[in-house]
Amino acid sequence: MKTTGGSDAEKRAAGESAAEAVEDGTVVGLGTGSTAAHAIRAIGRKVDSGLDVRGIPTSFQSRELAKEAAIPLTSLDEANAVHLAIDGADQFSGPHLVKGGGAAHAREKIVDAAANRLLVVADPSKAAGQLDHPIPVEVLPDARTTVVDDVRALGGSPSLRTAERKDGPVVTDNGNLVLDCDFGEIANPAELADDLSGLPGAVEHGLFVGMADEVHVGTDDGVDVKRF
Amino acid sequence: MKTTGGSDAEKRAAGESAAEAVEDGTVVGLGTGSTAAHAIRAIGRKVDSGLDVRGIPTSFQSRELAKEAAIPLTSLDEANAVHLAIDGADQFSGPHLVKGGGAAHAREKIVDAAANRLLVVADPSKAAGQLDHPIPVEVLPDARTTVVDDVRALGGSPSLRTAERKDGPVVTDNGNLVLDCDFGEIANPAELADDLSGLPGAVEHGLFVGMADEVHVGTDDGVDVKRF
Repeated sequence: MKTTGGSDAEKRAAGESAAEAVEDGTVVGLGTGSTAAHAIRAIGRKVDSGLDVRGIPTSFQSRELAKEAAIPLTSLDEANAVHLAIDGADQFSGPHLVKGGGAAHAREKIVDAAANRLLVVADPSKAAGQLDHPIPVEVLPDARTTVVDDVRALGGSPSLRTAERKDGPVVTDNGNLVLDCDFGEIANPAELADDLSGLPGAVEHGLFVGMADEVHVGTDDGVDVKRF
Repeated sequence: MKTTGGSDAEKRAAGESAAEAVEDGTVVGLGTGSTAAHAIRAIGRKVDSGLDVRGIPTSFQSRELAKEAAIPLTSLDEANAVHLAIDGADQFSGPHLVKGGGAAHAREKIVDAAANRLLVVADPSKAAGQLDHPIPVEVLPDARTTVVDDVRALGGSPSLRTAERKDGPVVTDNGNLVLDCDFGEIANPAELADDLSGLPGAVEHGLFVGMADEVHVGTDDGVDVKRF
């Protein structure tokens, strides 16, 4: 599992805090990443104690963790509603997020957007005054070079994400590629999100504009919860 | 090959008219469908006669046709520029198009958008005062049910495209599904295009807003060329 910034204690505090919001009889989106993993394990302990909940994984990784934690699973097809999603972020500024460090942001966005409420779990290293993390853009393999040109025209510096345990590029769970696109400080996330969404062959980008309802930031002293 | 509306003579006239615009030493995007197929065959005859051109197919189907026609092929990766693209449309209104009847609209949009000029070839049955053809939306399999909900919220009626030579749904060349989304008459194509682009899990939709530089409409008497 990819882990960046923050201490494990901070991540655990954030994940466990968000897991407390999971209510009996609900459907919960299960996020991806090292902080969301703590939430999944905490939900698993509540299931052990009798909580009736069904989970919808946002990735291969969160599905495996949920199975380990013995959380009953369902799917977007079967569930009538997703009451809550708990997910991590690579960076957040207010309710705006950058996600996609694990290349799972397409499915994460599908599940998080379908949820009535999104609780983001993070450590303090993920907080920013203004978003400036490179934006992962999942692209159809056919569109790799054209989206590179398009991103440059928007003022960004794209680089194809290369894999570490295989030769060549990272391939997403959907069979696509990822361009990490550095735009420096992003003054207007909504505008950039629209621009990126409109690029031909861009499947999904990692800007989650205004999507967080709460951000739980774990610290050594406890958890700071921001509500939007 | 899927053929709809219009006579073969009309389609041939349109395809051959657009093929005349192909100049020596250029790179040409080769569109999909029964009318673009006539353009590909006409370009093939010009190659036989000594024209130096390289083609970039927009689909599996146009690649096969281009190979039959002995047009040298290149790719978006290798070509420095795409000088011209010739492509069909399911419907057009001015420079706005609906494409995707053949479920190839994602790659078509990538190539057509990369081209300096897009020449659309059509028969008169494809002309509309206002676009009202259902919009094909290619979606990640994970997002099938959420995009159905999202399209309904935008006022559309989505239906999953089912296959005829296999059980179950049409699967695109990218491994995704297609929702045909009926919005009735589309008063503001640009606004709808932005809305559809922004849906989580929507890979590419079939609205090509303002993309045509010319539309060549084949008739029994010749070809009507509209320039934008």
